[in-house]
Amino acid sequence: MKLDKNTNILIVGLGLLGGSYAMALTKKGYKVSAVTRSRRSIDVALKNSLIREGTNEPDPKLIGKAELVIFALYPHAFVEWIEKNQHLLKSGAVITDVTGVKGTLVKKIQGMLRDDVEFIAAHPMAGREVSGVENSDDSIFEGANYVVTPTEKNTPEAIKVCEDLGRALGFARISRLDPEEHDRIIAFVSQLTHCIAISLMTCNDADHIGTYTGDSFRDLTRIANINEVMWTELFLDNLDALIHQMDLFAAEFGRLRWMLASRDVEGIKDTMRKSTARRIALDQGK
Amino acid sequence: MKLDKNTNILIVGLGLLGGSYAMALTKKGYKVSAVTRSRRSIDVALKNSLIREGTNEPDPKLIGKAELVIFALYPHAFVEWIEKNQHLLKSGAVITDVTGVKGTLVKKIQGMLRDDVEFIAAHPMAGREVSGVENSDDSIFEGANYVVTPTEKNTPEAIKVCEDLGRALGFARISRLDPEEHDRIIAFVSQLTHCIAISLMTCNDADHIGTYTGDSFRDLTRIANINEVMWTELFLDNLDALIHQMDLFAAEFGRLRWMLASRDVEGIKDTMRKSTARRIALDQGK
Repeated sequence: MKLDKNTNILIVGLGLLGGSYAMALTKKGYKVSAVTRSRRSIDVALKNSLIREGTNEPDPKLIGKAELVIFALYPHAFVEWIEKNQHLLKSGAVITDVTGVKGTLVKKIQGMLRDDVEFIAAHPMAGREVSGVENSDDSIFEGANYVVTPTEKNTPEAIKVCEDLGRALGFARISRLDPEEHDRIIAFVSQLTHCIAISLMTCNDADHIGTYTGDSFRDLTRIANINEVMWTELFLDNLDALIHQMDLFAAEFGRLRWMLASRDVEGIKDTMRKSTARRIALDQGK
Repeated sequence: MKLDKNTNILIVGLGLLGGSYAMALTKKGYKVSAVTRSRRSIDVALKNSLIREGTNEPDPKLIGKAELVIFALYPHAFVEWIEKNQHLLKSGAVITDVTGVKGTLVKKIQGMLRDDVEFIAAHPMAGREVSGVENSDDSIFEGANYVVTPTEKNTPEAIKVCEDLGRALGFARISRLDPEEHDRIIAFVSQLTHCIAISLMTCNDADHIGTYTGDSFRDLTRIANINEVMWTELFLDNLDALIHQMDLFAAEFGRLRWMLASRDVEGIKDTMRKSTARRIALDQGK
């Protein structure tokens, strides 16, 4: 299959991300329908013209005509859905997802899926600190990264559909990683980052800090407003890699503390120079 | 003295912050001059109409007529300047500063200062990741916090001048803290935050992370681009309070790691709920 304006696209799970996918695709003239558990979410999506049609039950007709199915569910709900409803999928359909952890999940889904349906996984690195289809916002994809994580089971055609989807959504950079490498990198750039923000927000019970704080504290804790159900699941699905990154960070933080306590001025300055150089390289896309 | 449009304001030190002060005050019609070490900085400030006049030597005439002197120098340079040049200050002048650490410094300056000059300290909680007068930008004060740190040596008149200055600069919230309390809070909301950003940026040598990263990593490391001379000085001037906050954070981060490693789902979710509640309270100004 190819992705074009005639493709029947079905989104399963209309939360913030599913809704934002629907908004971006519908705006560009794609044919988008949705299946989600909540009737209210379908009503909101229809009212805001995010989708053409939708049901709050796994409707065989809607699912059966979809050539591209995008799962915007929590990992375990995705697995359950496939177990229960994969017989409804159209033969030849391509399915993809938005899940933030890949290794175990991709193996599990590809292992259990029918032979005439292909799963190509992707991780859209975009989000907001609010949830729900009513907060859908396709501008979150502007300037953002979209990572496709193919395995040896994937065909070049399905990989292309998935990358075309990323382009249609408006992502700035589309790249490929194998699922395990993806999870190692995500443990560092995303999961560790969230663990740090949570710990910073909860390590001190000081009140009224809003009156005395600068932008830096706000920046470091923006993601401390966190969906505990989703993130607990994502952390535990990638636990070894996350713990490894947490230990690397804790060791480096401990090293800085030691240099400070021993007033090792040159050591502190060296670390700050390294930090500055690496941050500038990040801005330069290196 | 009172702060009004006829007050002769002298800024000592034309870096990013001194230049941004000059820009904000000059735009509002205040009379601003400057003394700084670099002739180039004076030329830039004159060319951009940030100041009326300026010298790169401690000019007795310029200093002698200033009723309000704002020191935008590193802490040790501020102390040295007072030691060397305080005889040039006008009798009755009020002096203030922009230094990020207060306890030791305020005591030191107030202890050594002439009796007919008053030092009232302030901390403008604003900045950018670039330095130099050529990057001056008075918009950094919009929405930002300005903290005045009076001691028992300060008069209500000088405190008012300092608070009026904060208003003239365009700060959103002006508050008072005693210098020691200021330093304890700053150790948490600013210094710890910078230590975390530095350690996150330097704990992993992964390359090309720009291709795979979301906004969260960028947000948490924005301040990892850091002026190592200034911040090393600020950290060491507030070392006990900073180390205490680093230890609180490390303990909380270690607690989260332990909960993850032991798959304590309820403990993790509780911590995330606390984190979310505290972050929402911060946004609500609580």
